[in-house]
Amino acid sequence: MITDEHILLAHGGGGQLTAELIEEVILPALGPAGAQDASRLNDSATVVLPGPPGQVVFTTDSYIVQPLEFPGGDIGKLAVCGTVNDLAVSGAAARAISLALVLAEGLEVALLRRVLASAGAAARGAGVAVVTGDTKVMPRAALDGMVINTAGVGEPLAGAELGFERLAAGDAVVLSGPLGEHGLAVMCAREALSLSADLASDCAALNGLTARLIAELGPAVRFMRDPTRGGLAAILAEIAAATGRNIEIIEADIPVHPTVLAAAEMLGLDVLSAANEGKLVAVVAPEAGERAAAILAADPIARRAAVIGRIGEPASPPLVELLTRSGGRRVVQMPYGEELPRIC
Amino acid sequence: MITDEHILLAHGGGGQLTAELIEEVILPALGPAGAQDASRLNDSATVVLPGPPGQVVFTTDSYIVQPLEFPGGDIGKLAVCGTVNDLAVSGAAARAISLALVLAEGLEVALLRRVLASAGAAARGAGVAVVTGDTKVMPRAALDGMVINTAGVGEPLAGAELGFERLAAGDAVVLSGPLGEHGLAVMCAREALSLSADLASDCAALNGLTARLIAELGPAVRFMRDPTRGGLAAILAEIAAATGRNIEIIEADIPVHPTVLAAAEMLGLDVLSAANEGKLVAVVAPEAGERAAAILAADPIARRAAVIGRIGEPASPPLVELLTRSGGRRVVQMPYGEELPRIC
Repeated sequence: MITDEHILLAHGGGGQLTAELIEEVILPALGPAGAQDASRLNDSATVVLPGPPGQVVFTTDSYIVQPLEFPGGDIGKLAVCGTVNDLAVSGAAARAISLALVLAEGLEVALLRRVLASAGAAARGAGVAVVTGDTKVMPRAALDGMVINTAGVGEPLAGAELGFERLAAGDAVVLSGPLGEHGLAVMCAREALSLSADLASDCAALNGLTARLIAELGPAVRFMRDPTRGGLAAILAEIAAATGRNIEIIEADIPVHPTVLAAAEMLGLDVLSAANEGKLVAVVAPEAGERAAAILAADPIARRAAVIGRIGEPASPPLVELLTRSGGRRVVQMPYGEELPRIC
Repeated sequence: MITDEHILLAHGGGGQLTAELIEEVILPALGPAGAQDASRLNDSATVVLPGPPGQVVFTTDSYIVQPLEFPGGDIGKLAVCGTVNDLAVSGAAARAISLALVLAEGLEVALLRRVLASAGAAARGAGVAVVTGDTKVMPRAALDGMVINTAGVGEPLAGAELGFERLAAGDAVVLSGPLGEHGLAVMCAREALSLSADLASDCAALNGLTARLIAELGPAVRFMRDPTRGGLAAILAEIAAATGRNIEIIEADIPVHPTVLAAAEMLGLDVLSAANEGKLVAVVAPEAGERAAAILAADPIARRAAVIGRIGEPASPPLVELLTRSGGRRVVQMPYGEELPRIC
């Protein structure tokens, strides 16, 4: 029985204490309701793929956010949504995820329980099972808090044909909602700035949005990505570099929450390169832009979806340009390094 | 270009520096020879499954070993072999692995290069591709060294029928070689004890051994596991608990390297619960024991494979008993916590 309120090194030793932690803390949170079956979260799991055979989409991400809990989410929710989203924007339906914990000795078990409950709720909300995992413990001097890694396997959605090579001049760049909410919420929580009660991470699973987009528009959807670290600026710079094409985006059409804008201005940050954890960038055929925005906007997590720009002609070097509210033009750079450390 | 010799926080920011680290340090090590294609190690990868459709085996593990380099291996080799082995003992052929790095700010880039070269060599040696990954950087005060997570997807081997429920009285317990080499080598490296030049980790990929065993013995192979954290003692305790059957093992038949035994005795540790990273425990049908040991022994990494015990009758509580060299009997306990911290 877990009698100590803090994680011990011995909880990571692979013996009886590890088994107790898995059975009493991890499985109840991540398993089906009431699961106490130690054969779940085994060393490996067999995932049944109901779709057409032959391909599986595979992804991984580690999460190191500080603080571990922040307005709108925590590291557990983030770890589940992040990997579901990586599969979603690849045009795949998530079938199963793994969740591997690295815990610092001395971590409060109550905090671990909250984070795992949140991860479990996020997984159930996204309709994906956590099927395998791992638990390690590091000495308190060697790690601060915890690191979570999730990996995911999924199947390609029927009708998904995505890739840089499909992008052409005139294609519409669609954004599912306001930028920078995750980055600014975490930054303010970390710096203990209380700018406003309504500054919260947008952390959310995008697989509902992407599945609907593919189901309704099929191959007219040409590229999808979630603008996490590096934000919208990094995604657009990546598209420009990969396609060799200019991109123009229109500042007046890019939704930003006023509190986020205020926080970003105060901290000297650019919302275009701030992190998001529940936003989708989709590039669709020229005539499908408004329809894509409308499909997205039908979902509460994407009410402010909008066409924010267009793919342009080939250029050398290709540039991402922002048409500003004042009618000027500004080149949007690939972020160089770390504007917002440890936010995903 | 990577000009600094140490990892910066900005290398984890998702911007240009992250891209440079991936292209200049990570891809050359983990990709096919000369790979400089940034589309590899993308956010996700599509894995083609050549086998019969419908199932994929999925596993994950995080690696936190200290020191990062030790006689016989390093954290990179360990991370690749460990996940290949989790698939192998599940009766699956590894098709692809992910590799996610969490690096401490200030880490030497030269060390990272060595670890990744070792991971790449281990992957090529095991015949499995690293297809996707992730890189994060934590502030130097928040992490010591690095954490690597690997996840793996594989396909069930034809003829593999493994499970606790298949075990019966008389089944032979086969061990592929001497116990405790990884645990004692890492422990001595960490404590800077130089007991002997020939104390080295057994870290190795087991997928060749398991595939041969299944190919030659088919369903006569009933259960496989690699005795990592918690060692042989933890695996046998797990089998006893899951099947409700006694297990008897014979000390005189269990291979142990004399240097390992000497180191374990000096440190007050039990080789039965010391960690291994290149050993296989297989439980096979009663008459197949010697044949299984011979199949394993044909491989240089399992030259000293032997039948070390038998599954017994149901009992309550079921016990794992060691028949000692002196003719006595000793109950082998499930290790309680952490005998050998941070060794895998």
